[in-house]
Amino acid sequence: MSLLPDTDLLLPTLAARLGAVAKRFEQELVSDLPAVNKLVRHVEHYRGKMLRPTLVIASGLAVRANSIVNHTSHASQVIDESLDALAAVVEMIHMATLVHDDVLDEADLRRGGATVNSLRGNETAVMLGDFLFSSSFHLCSSVGESWLNSELSLMTSQLCSGEILQLSHRGDLTLDASTYFEIIRRKTGVLAGACCGLAARLTGATPAVCEALRLFGEELGMAFQIQDDVLDLIGEERVVGKTLGIDLRKGKFTLPLVTHLTRCSPDVRALTIQAIEQCDVPTLLRLIESTESLTASREHAVGFVSKAKSRLSILTESSARQMLCSIADATIEREF
Amino acid sequence: MSLLPDTDLLLPTLAARLGAVAKRFEQELVSDLPAVNKLVRHVEHYRGKMLRPTLVIASGLAVRANSIVNHTSHASQVIDESLDALAAVVEMIHMATLVHDDVLDEADLRRGGATVNSLRGNETAVMLGDFLFSSSFHLCSSVGESWLNSELSLMTSQLCSGEILQLSHRGDLTLDASTYFEIIRRKTGVLAGACCGLAARLTGATPAVCEALRLFGEELGMAFQIQDDVLDLIGEERVVGKTLGIDLRKGKFTLPLVTHLTRCSPDVRALTIQAIEQCDVPTLLRLIESTESLTASREHAVGFVSKAKSRLSILTESSARQMLCSIADATIEREF
Repeated sequence: MSLLPDTDLLLPTLAARLGAVAKRFEQELVSDLPAVNKLVRHVEHYRGKMLRPTLVIASGLAVRANSIVNHTSHASQVIDESLDALAAVVEMIHMATLVHDDVLDEADLRRGGATVNSLRGNETAVMLGDFLFSSSFHLCSSVGESWLNSELSLMTSQLCSGEILQLSHRGDLTLDASTYFEIIRRKTGVLAGACCGLAARLTGATPAVCEALRLFGEELGMAFQIQDDVLDLIGEERVVGKTLGIDLRKGKFTLPLVTHLTRCSPDVRALTIQAIEQCDVPTLLRLIESTESLTASREHAVGFVSKAKSRLSILTESSARQMLCSIADATIEREF
Repeated sequence: MSLLPDTDLLLPTLAARLGAVAKRFEQELVSDLPAVNKLVRHVEHYRGKMLRPTLVIASGLAVRANSIVNHTSHASQVIDESLDALAAVVEMIHMATLVHDDVLDEADLRRGGATVNSLRGNETAVMLGDFLFSSSFHLCSSVGESWLNSELSLMTSQLCSGEILQLSHRGDLTLDASTYFEIIRRKTGVLAGACCGLAARLTGATPAVCEALRLFGEELGMAFQIQDDVLDLIGEERVVGKTLGIDLRKGKFTLPLVTHLTRCSPDVRALTIQAIEQCDVPTLLRLIESTESLTASREHAVGFVSKAKSRLSILTESSARQMLCSIADATIEREF
C-alpha cells in the first residue's frame, strides 16, 4: 500500500475546474463586434498545456488541504470562483504575450521570418494582444479584490521589463548567466510565481505560505524557460509544435550558448560566432555539445526544480501538494 | 463687465495640477532596470497636448463647482489625488496606444514607411507599449476603487476593439459613415468619455452628471478624431508635427474619403481609386474637394462639438464648465 496520497484522485477535480476556467476565458472575450470575435478565435490555436491555470488550481487545492480552518461551503464556492477567474486571467496574460511575440521586426522580415506570424499582419497581432491584456485586467477586477489588480499589473510590468531586458541584450555575445537568469525570472518566473502565490492568498494562506508558493512557482517557471530554450535548439519541430531556432534568429541568446561561450577556446568561439551569424543550428549544437553546455543547462533546470519542490515542505503532505511536485518534475521532462 | 466666469483664473490651478500629474506619470514608470528607463525616456517624445489629463482635471473642477456638498479639506485632497492618478493613467494608456501605432507591417515596410518607427524595432515598441499598459493599470489600482479598474479596463478593451474594427476594414472602399463613426467612437471617443465620466464619479457627481460628462467627452473625442483625420490629409507636416498621409498608406479610410465615395460620379470614383493606389494625396485632395467632402467632414466635427457642449447644461455655470466648453471648441479649431 502506497503511503503517498493518490494524485490520480485529484485529476477529475482538476479537469472540471479547468473546464470552468476555459468557460470564464471564452465568456470574457465575447465582443459585440464580429471582427473581434473572428480574431479571438485565432487565439484558440495558442491554447496549449494550460500550465498556468493548472498551477493556480493545484495551489489552491494544496493550500486548502493544508488549512486548519474549514471554510463554509459558501465561502469555499466564492474562493473557487475567484481562483477560476485568476486562472483565466493568467492564461489570458500568457496568451497576450504569445500573440505579441509573433510581432515581427524589419530584421526578421529580411531573414524571411514572416511565417512566424500566422495572423493578419503585425498591427492586428498588436491589437489582439492589447485586447487580451485589457480583457484580462477587466476579468481580474471582477474578483473585487483591489490588491489582486495591483499585484497582477505589477507582475505584468515585470514580465514586460524582462522582455525589454532581453531585447536590450539582442545579439550581445557578452550576455552573462546571471543576466540570463534575471531575464527568465522576469519573463517567465514571475507569472508562474503569481499563479501560485496569488492563488494561495485568495485561498486564505498565511503570508509565509504565500511567499513559499510564489517562490515555488517562480523557480518552476525558470526551469520551464530553460527547458524551452534548450528545446528551441535541440527539439524536433514536429514534436515541439512550433518553428525552432527562432531565439537564435532573433539574436536572443539563451543558457546553452551563454554557458558555451564562457567555456570554449578562442578558436571554437570564432566558429561559434560564425554559426550564429549563419543561423546554422546543427553546427552550433555540435559546438555547444563539445563543451557540455547543454548538459550544464539541463542541470541548472534540474536545480531550479529541486529548489522549487523544497519550498513545498511548508505544506502538509496531500494529494494536491504531490500534484504540484509532479508538475514541477514535468516541466523538465517534457519534449514539447 | 463680462457675465461669464473667468476661465483665465483657473489656468494656474490647471497648470499646477498637470504638473502633479506629470510627476505621478514619471514616478510610476521608474524601473530598477536601466534598459527600461532608457526606453521610457523615448515616451517623452510623444507627450503633446495633455488633452486627456486636462479633461480629467477640468471635469473634476466643473463637478466640484456644481456640487451642493462641501467636502472637508481632507476629502478634497483625497479626491484631488485620485483625479491626478486617473489623469496620469489615461495619459499612459494614450501613450501606450501611440507607441503601438508605431508598429509596422510588412506592407508598410515595403512602402518605405520605416521612418514612422523612431524606436528600436517593432518588438521593442510592442514591449514598451505593454509596459505602459501594465503600469497604467498598476497606477489605477493605487486609487483603491475596484470599479475604477473595471471601468478603465473595459474602456481599454473597447479602444482595442475600435482599432480591430478599423483594421478589419483596411482598404475597404465600401466602408460607410456609420461604421466610421463607430470606429472613432471606440478608438478615440471612449477614452475621452472615460476621462470626463470617471473624473465626475471620483468627484462624487450623481449618475446623471457622470453620464452627461461621459457623453460630453465621447462626442468631443469624436470631433477631435475627425479633425485629426482631416489634418492627416490637408495639414502641413511642419505644423502638425508628424508624417502625414499615413492613414491612406495604411489603407485606413477616413470620413472625407468615405463621404466623397458616396457622392462622386463613377468617373471620379475611378480616378479616386487610382489616387488611393498611388498614395497621391494632392490629387486625392483635389478630387475630395470637388464633392465638398472636406467641408462636410468639418461640419460633422462641428456637430459633435455642439452636441458635446449641450451636455454641459446639466452643470451650473462656472469657470470650469466654461473651460470644458473652450476645450471642446479648441479640438476643431486646431491645426496640429
